[in-house]
Parts: sequence; C-alpha cells; structure tokens
Amino acid sequence: MPEVEGFWAVVPAGGAGTRLWPLSRAGHPKFLLDLTGTGRSLLQGTLDRLAPLTGDHVVVVTGAVHADAVRGQLPGLPADRVLAEPAPRDSMAAIGLAAAVVERTDPDAVIGSFAADHVIPDADAFRTAVREAVDVARGGHLVTLGVEPTHPATGFGYIRAGERLDGFPTALRAVEFVEKPDAERAAGYLAAGGYRWNAGMFVARATVLLDLLHTWHPDLADGLRAIAAEPSRLDELWPGLTRIAIDHAVAEPAAAAGHVDVVPPEGRRDDVGDFASLSALLPGGDGPHVLGDADAVTALGSSGLVVAGGARRVAVVGMDDVVVVDTPDAVLVTTRARAQEVKAVVDALRAEGREDLL
Amino acid sequence: MPEVEGFWAVVPAGGAGTRLWPLSRAGHPKFLLDLTGTGRSLLQGTLDRLAPLTGDHVVVVTGAVHADAVRGQLPGLPADRVLAEPAPRDSMAAIGLAAAVVERTDPDAVIGSFAADHVIPDADAFRTAVREAVDVARGGHLVTLGVEPTHPATGFGYIRAGERLDGFPTALRAVEFVEKPDAERAAGYLAAGGYRWNAGMFVARATVLLDLLHTWHPDLADGLRAIAAEPSRLDELWPGLTRIAIDHAVAEPAAAAGHVDVVPPEGRRDDVGDFASLSALLPGGDGPHVLGDADAVTALGSSGLVVAGGARRVAVVGMDDVVVVDTPDAVLVTTRARAQEVKAVVDALRAEGREDLL
Repeated sequence: MPEVEGFWAVVPAGGAGTRLWPLSRAGHPKFLLDLTGTGRSLLQGTLDRLAPLTGDHVVVVTGAVHADAVRGQLPGLPADRVLAEPAPRDSMAAIGLAAAVVERTDPDAVIGSFAADHVIPDADAFRTAVREAVDVARGGHLVTLGVEPTHPATGFGYIRAGERLDGFPTALRAVEFVEKPDAERAAGYLAAGGYRWNAGMFVARATVLLDLLHTWHPDLADGLRAIAAEPSRLDELWPGLTRIAIDHAVAEPAAAAGHVDVVPPEGRRDDVGDFASLSALLPGGDGPHVLGDADAVTALGSSGLVVAGGARRVAVVGMDDVVVVDTPDAVLVTTRARAQEVKAVVDALRAEGREDLL
Repeated sequence: MPEVEGFWAVVPAGGAGTRLWPLSRAGHPKFLLDLTGTGRSLLQGTLDRLAPLTGDHVVVVTGAVHADAVRGQLPGLPADRVLAEPAPRDSMAAIGLAAAVVERTDPDAVIGSFAADHVIPDADAFRTAVREAVDVARGGHLVTLGVEPTHPATGFGYIRAGERLDGFPTALRAVEFVEKPDAERAAGYLAAGGYRWNAGMFVARATVLLDLLHTWHPDLADGLRAIAAEPSRLDELWPGLTRIAIDHAVAEPAAAAGHVDVVPPEGRRDDVGDFASLSALLPGGDGPHVLGDADAVTALGSSGLVVAGGARRVAVVGMDDVVVVDTPDAVLVTTRARAQEVKAVVDALRAEGREDLL
C-alpha cells in the first residue's frame, strides 16, 4: 500500500482516563497502556494504523511529563516529532502547534488529527476514509470524519450533513456541528437522517487549518506560527495562548461558512472511555473477558471483565457483569453498568490527598 | 469472678477454613486469624472467653505444623499444654488425648471442649451455661451445650431434649442426637419443640469421657491413655487410633444409654464458616462492613464486606452485597449470597497444583 504523498498525521496524546482508574494513572495514562491485549499501547496502535498512509510523517503532541514515555514507545520516530506541551491548553493549541510545525517543513502538507486513545477495529476501512478525506482536503476545505450513527448516543456531538460532493465516493458538505444532545434530541437526529457522529478527526491542509483559525482567533494562529518559527519561544508564548477546543475554534464557524466537508468512515471507533467499552473490545468466552494474564484468573459462574495486572491470583465467584481491576497498589470492583462512576473514586482519592494513587 | 475449681478447657484448634480463602490458608488457618477486628485471633478469643473459668487450665490440641504458631499466640500458656497431633485423626482422638493428659494431672478434673474457631458474642451467658454444665457433669454424666433454635437451620445437628433435671436452672436430659436434617425435617423439629442445635461443646469428667469411650471403642480409649502415660509413644501409637468424631464415638451411644444431659446456653455462637457469617459479626454502617484497615477502603454506593488485608487501596463502586477479600497474593470477589462457593476456588487451585496459594 503506497504512502499518501504529502500527508502528515498529528496525534494529540492526552487525557487522564480517570474512568479507567486504577489501570490508567496520571503517570501512565490510557494512551500509554495496552488495553487491547495486543502487546501495543493505544498510542502505538494509532501509529501502526496510520503507518501505511504516513510512514514516519507523524507529529505527536503530548504533555511535557509524558514526552519521554511517548518517545520510548515510539523508537522509530525522530525525537523532535514529539512535541511537549508545557501545560494543557486544550485541543486547538495542541493540533495547531503541530500544524504550524508541519507547515514549515512542507507548505503543501495535508494533516489529519487522530487522537492517541482510539481503537478502530476495521483499520482498512478507516484508511480508505482517510485517503478520501485527504483528497477532499487538497481542495482547500476542512474535512471531518463522521461516523454513521447506529443508535441515539448522547456521548457524541453530531454533524448535520448536506449535499453530496461531486467526484468523491462518500463526501458530503458539513452543514452544522451540534453539541452532545439529550436522549430525545439524539432520537430526533436518528429519525431525521443525515446526521453523523463527530469522531473528532479532522483533515485539512496545514495552511488551511491555520488560516481558518486566523479568521476567528488571529492571536492564537499567530502565536502557534511564531512558536513553530522559533521553538525556543515555546515556554514564553505557550501560557498566553487561548484555551479552546478545535471544534469551537474552527470546525463550527467554518462549517457555518461552508468550508467543511464530512467523510463517513465505515465501521466503529471507540475511545475506550470506561471499563464497559474496554470489555467490549476484548475477546470473550464463557467467563469474563480478561485483560492481562488469563492464567492468573479463576472465574466461577461469572461474567464481565477482569484486568489481571497485579501479578496476583484474582478469583471471582458468582458475579454477573462484574468489573475487577487488579493492580499492584489498588484493586477496583464495580460492574459494567456502573463503569461511568469510577471517576468518583478518583475524585474521592484526590479529596483525601492521595496523589500517589492517581 | 472466681475460677471453677478443677475445671479444664480442651480447645481443639483445627479446620482448614477453605470457605474463607484467601484470608484463611493452610499455613495460617482460620483459628489463627483476627476475624473480628478486635486484635485477637479466634483462638485467643476462645481462651480469653474461658479464662475467668479456667485460668491457665487449658489444653490446646492442634496439628503439628501449627503448634509453634499456637504457642506464639498464647505466650501465657505453658508450652506442654499445646499438644501437637502428628496427623489429623478426627475430634475424638484430639479431645480424648487432652482428656487423658488432664486425667493424669487431676483425676477428678471436669473438662469442657470448645472449638478454637467459634465467636460467641455474649461471653457472660456462655460462661453461665458452662458453669451449670460443669456442675451437672460432676454427677457423672456427659453434658452438651445445646443452643435454642431460632430458625430451621440445616447446617447443624440437633439434640432432642427430654425431662428437666432437678436442682439445675436449665439442664435437660438429652434423649437423642440427630444428624444435620434437610429443610423439611428441620422445620418439623422446630414445630415439635424440645430440640436444640448441637453446638459441638461437651463437658464431662475426664475419666467419665474416657470410660464412656472405652465402652464402645476400648482400643481408642486405651491408646489415648497409653500416650498420656508415656508421651514419647505418641508417634508410635497415634497412626493406629480410630478416626472418628466425638459425636459418633461417645455422644450418640451415651445419649441412647441415658448418660447425656444438655444445658441451653443463651445467645448465639458462630463458627465463622464463610464470609457471609463473618460479615454478620462485624460492625456495619452505611457502606460495607470492613475487616482490616478501613482507611484503605473507598466504597461508593456499596454494601457487603471488604477485607482489606493487602496494604492496597480497595475501591468498590455500586456493588450490593459484595464480598471483596484483598490479600498480598490473591484477591477474591463474590457476594455474601454465594459465599459458600468459595470452597470451589480452593478446589480449582488445588487442581492446578497451586499449593502456594492454599
């Protein structure tokens, strides 16, 4: 499979993953973990999936505290392709900085931004969609990947799609971005048709993205280009950058102005937000799904998920839909149905001042 | 409170406690554990409870592998009061050996046998019953403590009681011992009245117990008395002793012959057979009952039992009636309702050859 000429991947690697505690910690967050039992972290899996398109044309943007760990997991990537944010400034600054760096290297480059914590079972279909998005983006638009909804999810924002674009297999005009809806509105979107889930993946020429940003946030665009021109000014300029998400900064106003298209990728994508979605990604049989050493698990009359990460025996007896996560210094017991509430444990530990467990 | 003249306690300390895995192990079984959060093991609690009656007139009988641990927990007891069985030979040999040893020290002694793994919340009522049992036993009968049933339990044997004994507050003739009944027969016993749960506690003059034993099992009685006379013959004689429970060897035939009385102790007694009964012994509040370090437990919207024994954080979210037992090399997750099935984990580990976890 040939590389896509002039295409660069931008991979923001961030997010606390607090609903995956105690597996995900501040020191080794979700994207650095092997959550699929493949021996590759989510970050490595993201780059593996993109490699046939990009080769090593990849820029990873991560927090300064994680930069060394990221470089350690990606030994094939030149060290200066891992950009370290001095502090989190939301997604526009992260992706925009990478865009500005790529723009200086390759003024005609098309970039695509793909979060480091996604799991995409059908990588071929994903790459087919990205190729189309790159082709569309060369024409000067911002292209977003929008997943065909299968149910009235309330956990995603939606994209309202309009007319077909001539000359492309699936591309549509993106008319409007809408925030995560309540259940009633989500059902309405599904009934109306023409809506896509916003997968948070954007493809555009680096220059187009920064020029669109300049239209609505000129200081932010100028600041990012200044850092790319003089990397030594990063610490000086970074704290003054506007803290805003790429959706609000560019995608929403650009869609309203008619500059955004949407390409529907086939198949599902999962951000592994909690132990329920993690469980769904793992092979299962009679008993619970197991991540880690299956030989360390004794499960009798049980279903759910066991994460065996503590080098200890984990025994589960008569538990339906249970989640047991064993780590060297903490063990979590909950159910897949309550998996969202794990965040409350992290909040409780923070309130206790137990940063060592976070 | 005065000691009871000439009264000796015999404490058989045995039992694997497999339904309390991973807390109870072959190397540190149930009776050596603090299961009540008082800082005292069940064995220590048993001697504490008896001390006002017996002082140090106590003989503990335990397996050879546990003798050192038992002596270590009972520093106030002369070392030769801990008898080490070379191998398990069931309860008659254990209690009978202690009886024979006491008989040589004090030919008029009354002994009472009390298992090392019982928890008895109302110790005063227990001691009142034991005092009465000792008084009755001085007359030459075997006296058993029989608990007034509160429900048609199928986990105990029953004692059918007969006429009142003159001159004692509660004592009755014991007419018959019956095996653990099924639910229907247990309900029948409760409806009929006059039945007691067999608490497995016997009081008799040491000589009476051994002479009764001699009536039905002369070789066993002779062998036990021979070991008491020459302790150096223990290893030689022990393997030839009949393996039989005290109920079958003495209590049942003696009752049929009219030699047994029953004293009803007030209040409940619990052998802490599994995590459900353990949970019931521990103080509880809004959340799960906790044994161990309560500060190590983060419980949100949960009930049940958490045993925090692994020096790790245990977090439980949205689990009703759960049992979580954390130890350094194993963690168990089940429910109080399934607590009986924990034994199956031990069976599975044994089948795997993981003796290190048993």
